[in-house]
Amino acid sequence: MKYEYLTNEDLDIAVESYITALKAEGLTPVSETIPVFEASGRVTAEAVYAHICAPHYNASAMDGIALMANVTFGATETTPVRLDASQFIQVDTGDPMPEGTDAVVMIEDVVRDGDDVLLYGAAVPWQHVRQVGEDVCAGDMILPSYTVITPAALGAMLAGGVMEVSVVKPPVVGIIPTGDEIVAPCTDPKPGDIIEFNSTIFSGILSSWGAVPKTYPIVKDIKEDIINTMKKAVEECDAVIINAGSSAGRDDYSSLAVSTVGTMLYHGIAIKPGKPAILGYAGKKPILGVPGYPVSGIIVLDQIMRPVIEVMTGRNLHQQAEIEATLGRVMTSPLKYREFVRVRLGVDDKGGYIATPLSRGAGVVTSFVKADGIIDVPQDCEGYEAGDKVKVTLLRPIQDLNNTLTIIGSHDPLIDEVADILKRQNPDSVVSSSHVGSMGAIMAVKRGEAQMGAIHLLDEATGEYNTSFVAKYFKDGGVKLEKGVKRVQGIMVAKGNPKGIKEFKDMARDDISYVNRQKGAGTRILCDYLIKKNGMNAADIYGYEREEFTHTSVAAQIASGTADAGLGIYSAAKTYDLDFIPICNEEYDLLIDEKAYDSEKIKDFLKVLHSDELKERLKRLGGYETWD
Amino acid sequence: MKYEYLTNEDLDIAVESYITALKAEGLTPVSETIPVFEASGRVTAEAVYAHICAPHYNASAMDGIALMANVTFGATETTPVRLDASQFIQVDTGDPMPEGTDAVVMIEDVVRDGDDVLLYGAAVPWQHVRQVGEDVCAGDMILPSYTVITPAALGAMLAGGVMEVSVVKPPVVGIIPTGDEIVAPCTDPKPGDIIEFNSTIFSGILSSWGAVPKTYPIVKDIKEDIINTMKKAVEECDAVIINAGSSAGRDDYSSLAVSTVGTMLYHGIAIKPGKPAILGYAGKKPILGVPGYPVSGIIVLDQIMRPVIEVMTGRNLHQQAEIEATLGRVMTSPLKYREFVRVRLGVDDKGGYIATPLSRGAGVVTSFVKADGIIDVPQDCEGYEAGDKVKVTLLRPIQDLNNTLTIIGSHDPLIDEVADILKRQNPDSVVSSSHVGSMGAIMAVKRGEAQMGAIHLLDEATGEYNTSFVAKYFKDGGVKLEKGVKRVQGIMVAKGNPKGIKEFKDMARDDISYVNRQKGAGTRILCDYLIKKNGMNAADIYGYEREEFTHTSVAAQIASGTADAGLGIYSAAKTYDLDFIPICNEEYDLLIDEKAYDSEKIKDFLKVLHSDELKERLKRLGGYETWD
Repeated sequence: MKYEYLTNEDLDIAVESYITALKAEGLTPVSETIPVFEASGRVTAEAVYAHICAPHYNASAMDGIALMANVTFGATETTPVRLDASQFIQVDTGDPMPEGTDAVVMIEDVVRDGDDVLLYGAAVPWQHVRQVGEDVCAGDMILPSYTVITPAALGAMLAGGVMEVSVVKPPVVGIIPTGDEIVAPCTDPKPGDIIEFNSTIFSGILSSWGAVPKTYPIVKDIKEDIINTMKKAVEECDAVIINAGSSAGRDDYSSLAVSTVGTMLYHGIAIKPGKPAILGYAGKKPILGVPGYPVSGIIVLDQIMRPVIEVMTGRNLHQQAEIEATLGRVMTSPLKYREFVRVRLGVDDKGGYIATPLSRGAGVVTSFVKADGIIDVPQDCEGYEAGDKVKVTLLRPIQDLNNTLTIIGSHDPLIDEVADILKRQNPDSVVSSSHVGSMGAIMAVKRGEAQMGAIHLLDEATGEYNTSFVAKYFKDGGVKLEKGVKRVQGIMVAKGNPKGIKEFKDMARDDISYVNRQKGAGTRILCDYLIKKNGMNAADIYGYEREEFTHTSVAAQIASGTADAGLGIYSAAKTYDLDFIPICNEEYDLLIDEKAYDSEKIKDFLKVLHSDELKERLKRLGGYETWD
Repeated sequence: MKYEYLTNEDLDIAVESYITALKAEGLTPVSETIPVFEASGRVTAEAVYAHICAPHYNASAMDGIALMANVTFGATETTPVRLDASQFIQVDTGDPMPEGTDAVVMIEDVVRDGDDVLLYGAAVPWQHVRQVGEDVCAGDMILPSYTVITPAALGAMLAGGVMEVSVVKPPVVGIIPTGDEIVAPCTDPKPGDIIEFNSTIFSGILSSWGAVPKTYPIVKDIKEDIINTMKKAVEECDAVIINAGSSAGRDDYSSLAVSTVGTMLYHGIAIKPGKPAILGYAGKKPILGVPGYPVSGIIVLDQIMRPVIEVMTGRNLHQQAEIEATLGRVMTSPLKYREFVRVRLGVDDKGGYIATPLSRGAGVVTSFVKADGIIDVPQDCEGYEAGDKVKVTLLRPIQDLNNTLTIIGSHDPLIDEVADILKRQNPDSVVSSSHVGSMGAIMAVKRGEAQMGAIHLLDEATGEYNTSFVAKYFKDGGVKLEKGVKRVQGIMVAKGNPKGIKEFKDMARDDISYVNRQKGAGTRILCDYLIKKNGMNAADIYGYEREEFTHTSVAAQIASGTADAGLGIYSAAKTYDLDFIPICNEEYDLLIDEKAYDSEKIKDFLKVLHSDELKERLKRLGGYETWD
């Protein structure tokens, strides 16, 4: 079935009628009884009542003497009451109240006189007695149904004599990966192989929701095999997820299998990514068809499977908080879909949040690793302008955001290395870095979206790095330029330099395919400077329009043989075992918002920047010189 | 060692120097290598770099034809380029780019002419090609050290050819319960037995922090046994918790054992509860002495063990949010300690949070089950006035609070039953109920602290229930009184009525010991009314001052034989198998804030109140009549 045949249902309507249909089929939490010892984090399937009182006996709450209060009545400061040994019993804290006593007098208030005692005050019945049921009384409800059992609740149940508890049985969710090109994860896939990591992602998500994932072996795109595997999964599991091949150009038997084994309620939801989702069921067992791209899969699970698992587990899984953020740049969105956009969040200089949209490619799973939150763009919204206020659903605790040092700018692996060292020193520290080039760094710091920018900008007129750009863009100051490192830039070429490239001028040769960096990148500016200096023309360079965002991705293209040369730093060439023709020694510096300069996170960053540990790491990466 | 010998160290100073000492001894996360498939939720022990690029090959991003872009150069709307079959290859989305091609032309832009094709536009190199490394490039850092591995990160690692990952090994924490009176959880403890549920609570807490608890059998208060068990635990575990007997009046060998097996850094921290905590270590292995009362234990674990586990796991465990709330009533705090007070939180009629302190008894573990948050009262603070703003650290997600229906007032098990039915209908619903008596209900609704109050107040003058009180306290309206149930009140006496009690007047008999309800409770007001009506004197009733907060706790005292009689509802007598002498049929009604009356949560509550399911449950409880 091709994507064009899909319907375009509204997400909320589809989910609501899906849940209604599943409940009508009898979908409800299933219970099992387990020992209380093993119940931490589980969900009660029914209300839990105390069987016994806690404490289960009246206990002395003090060290002192236990007695009947009425024998002390009338005692005052001036007229003490004398008790003989038969009228009181010595007790320690926690001792059961002896038979025939109803109060405790603290040891400090007892005056001994031989075997007798004198009391200079009357006791009130039940004073200093920890009474039966002070904590919980037999018959009291300790926990209602569908409540997560906290560690303290385990204690309350055991105190109340409850040894076993009826909890929701974790639903088993089958995951069926399908597709001719799909292969199990490995370190040496062949061209055309698609590594099957979705089932691992889905398993992690389902486990975090209290379900038990069960992944089936990969099924090829053979109609009968897919149908048979689904039949088996429906038999063995409480719910089934079928993960389609990611290709839109191939046959997809998922919907056919759903219709054959059960009922298909929807095929095609008006969301992006995730449109080809299938909502079906066999009896009360939900069957969800999930598109093959990982980001689509995660969104479909989150939006459609999560409410289903909530019904199956009696649990509220909507735990993420929502915040308001300012959009850092314009973001368009199609009117045909409700769109879920991953964003990074930074804290601006006024303590507000700035959201920067990440790659929207449905295949880019790292965008979910980098994402701090998600913007839910309604279908009738064409997008937002830079500066618009947007609601962002958080993907990580808000405390982490407030600890985050946001660095925007030119790509260099040293930023990741510093972030790692900071994390090792203090796991609370978070560095969020985005690669938008040196000019992007200047703009981001100017707008207050980043505390730090990473730049290497050559002033053609003076031959100096960075200072003239800072002077130009920050006429009124407000920033400090901190020396970073010197690093070698040059031409990366295949191992052994098979095309005999000697200098930048060779880029114009007919037999050379070039790979460039994106506009605004310092390395792109260097490229343009070299073109001008050598009297060349951009049009003469085959591949000038081919843009990559990092040094390593340029190196990766050359290593894969799809480009002959590209500009980049030595460490990237070294990582990919490429040959390297040095061109210049450039200055990679850090532009810091003056308002943030004295903050702990900047101080910590700069301390690491000048540390021996970083120097050691830079030596391993290669091609760096430090200033100190 | 008695408590008097303890020091009174400042918590922050103690924890900081404890952590410093442990780090100096070499405490640091330990790593282990595991398959990526099993790594969800674990913490990286070192930075993870991609081994291969993802995608690992250049792939067509469209259905169409692959070709060298330069063969299309010059093609325009008017002068198409003709390609023969040797110059292009048909590709589907996801196919590897064939050798010698660098661009894809969409099938829609291809005009077939026999075996040839005509193109009416030039292709740009690498158009419609999903390039090597679009997601992640070999050599790129996927995750820094000490980062929680999310499901998406599993996908990114597998995509990057990472099959195994170095993660922090969960530390094994030994738990040693000690004490002569301590017994394993059971349903029929003897008087004086203390049920050992702390190790279960601690295990739950430690597991939630990513540690592995290992509980040792209960050790009696024998010096040598405690020292030997600690030696064994230090050998077998990465950290040890020793849980002292809860008694302050007995010998406690914990500190002796810590000093013998290792080094004792502190004994006695200026916190309440939790003062007798012991901070020690044997080499780099932390040893924590935890007091026996469960609430003290939880606070000590949270305040002292949590930062230690953070060091051992490389994890930030400070995930709870903090909110500002208004204190509902005055709260005093000793100057000698920094105090941690459990509170319930409600949402007031302006959307703000109201904090109500819960029982401060260190033995009352249910106070932690009921608690929504904790107030950290500094040592130099004598407490707060009602209406003061206080910071509250949340114990549950803030979304749950916003869903909460707060009911304050007279105790009746029917409130718990309605809450349970609501939860079964919708696990998101939360009912928070506090038992402060009918007069407390009126005050709480008046102050906007509760959306609903539960009252049964008899007007002695008219013999009518509730209406005249509402008229008196809400002269300007603002509330609605909703009919609840009629329930039988009476005198609860031991099974078989051994003392031959016939009427309320018997409460003044010399051989009768009474148990009362707290001031403000409707049942207390009934008691006072009966005293007056019968021409009695409160002073004539032995036990008039003995106060309990619920019907069940009054019943529990009678069932345990420590009181002969008390007023309460029939269902409480039935639960405890007591005899019951009916006195009146009272009206238990619901006072609802008019501003909340139309809210979903009130509507849902009232629907359940009038439901057949509740009637069924009330029939089982006994002693109720409904109005409809």
